[in-house]
Amino acid sequence: MTNHRKIIVHIAASADGYIARSDGDIEWLTSRPAPKGFYGMNAFMKTIDTLVMGRLTYEAGLRLGGRFDPKRPTFVFSRGAPPADVPAGVEFVSGEIGPFVEQLRERPGKDIWLMGGGDLIVSFLDAQAIDEFVVSVVPVFIGDGIPLIARRPRLTHLSLQSVERFDDGMVQLHYEVQNQSRSR
Amino acid sequence: MTNHRKIIVHIAASADGYIARSDGDIEWLTSRPAPKGFYGMNAFMKTIDTLVMGRLTYEAGLRLGGRFDPKRPTFVFSRGAPPADVPAGVEFVSGEIGPFVEQLRERPGKDIWLMGGGDLIVSFLDAQAIDEFVVSVVPVFIGDGIPLIARRPRLTHLSLQSVERFDDGMVQLHYEVQNQSRSR
Repeated sequence: MTNHRKIIVHIAASADGYIARSDGDIEWLTSRPAPKGFYGMNAFMKTIDTLVMGRLTYEAGLRLGGRFDPKRPTFVFSRGAPPADVPAGVEFVSGEIGPFVEQLRERPGKDIWLMGGGDLIVSFLDAQAIDEFVVSVVPVFIGDGIPLIARRPRLTHLSLQSVERFDDGMVQLHYEVQNQSRSR
Repeated sequence: MTNHRKIIVHIAASADGYIARSDGDIEWLTSRPAPKGFYGMNAFMKTIDTLVMGRLTYEAGLRLGGRFDPKRPTFVFSRGAPPADVPAGVEFVSGEIGPFVEQLRERPGKDIWLMGGGDLIVSFLDAQAIDEFVVSVVPVFIGDGIPLIARRPRLTHLSLQSVERFDDGMVQLHYEVQNQSRSR
């Protein structure tokens, strides 16, 4: 029996539920001084060996100077043609989420980090392909932006696993995804 | 010197930041069994003696069978004409928030509960008239609905006062409103 590789959304959100401003800006997040341990992110990185993200998130990462580790494969979901120049370790995928996740889970490995954005998260949720959410709630209201989950009525029950409070007012909520329905 | 009567938003929100579905439905919230102490609500009610809400919230409260205590005055903000039949203790107001809040704070009394909805909250925020937010985060994603803060870009810094976790997975985040700007 293989171990179950979990797919985990580990993401920061404003206290009013946005992962970025409408134009992708996250200055409200990146302008914060990073505390020691980076909100548990360093520990989390040791539990995953695969990244999954949407194309906009990938491009935003590139703009922010993000580097990709060839030892930690990155899958970028994109409906369009992949760019000509892709860093080592990055693979563009355009197929269905279900078979992709099944294949990924058949290979032994650590957990999988689903980085976002909101559209990919909702597609994975609809495919019943997310195990956990770790939401780092930043103590700021930004008023409008890209929601954590792309907007469509749903009812997804969560089971709270833990709550961690950091000195700077960040609160990390760790949820397991329970039964859900696509409609309300 | 009079004591400072705080204006507090005490509200439940889904884990994706909505206070109700788009049509006002809160079945995802009311269908939960109420635990002993009702998430600290009973204790909170002892610290306030005045309610403030928008007209839609007032009407939703009436539909849900809410009763108004004449000893605890309720102010309903409404741009339209007040209804002919208003319960004892309820007063309709249509003026500016600034002078209203100033008058309220000049009278001695306990704290003031700003119940919502999102439009009134954002108007009070813009008038620098909210001291604290107590957000009870329900462990459920509803995907779309009325946001905690009506949608308009802003940057409101919050200071986390406390985090309380309840057995059923509800997490109560208590914030103080810090400096803010209306724009980003």
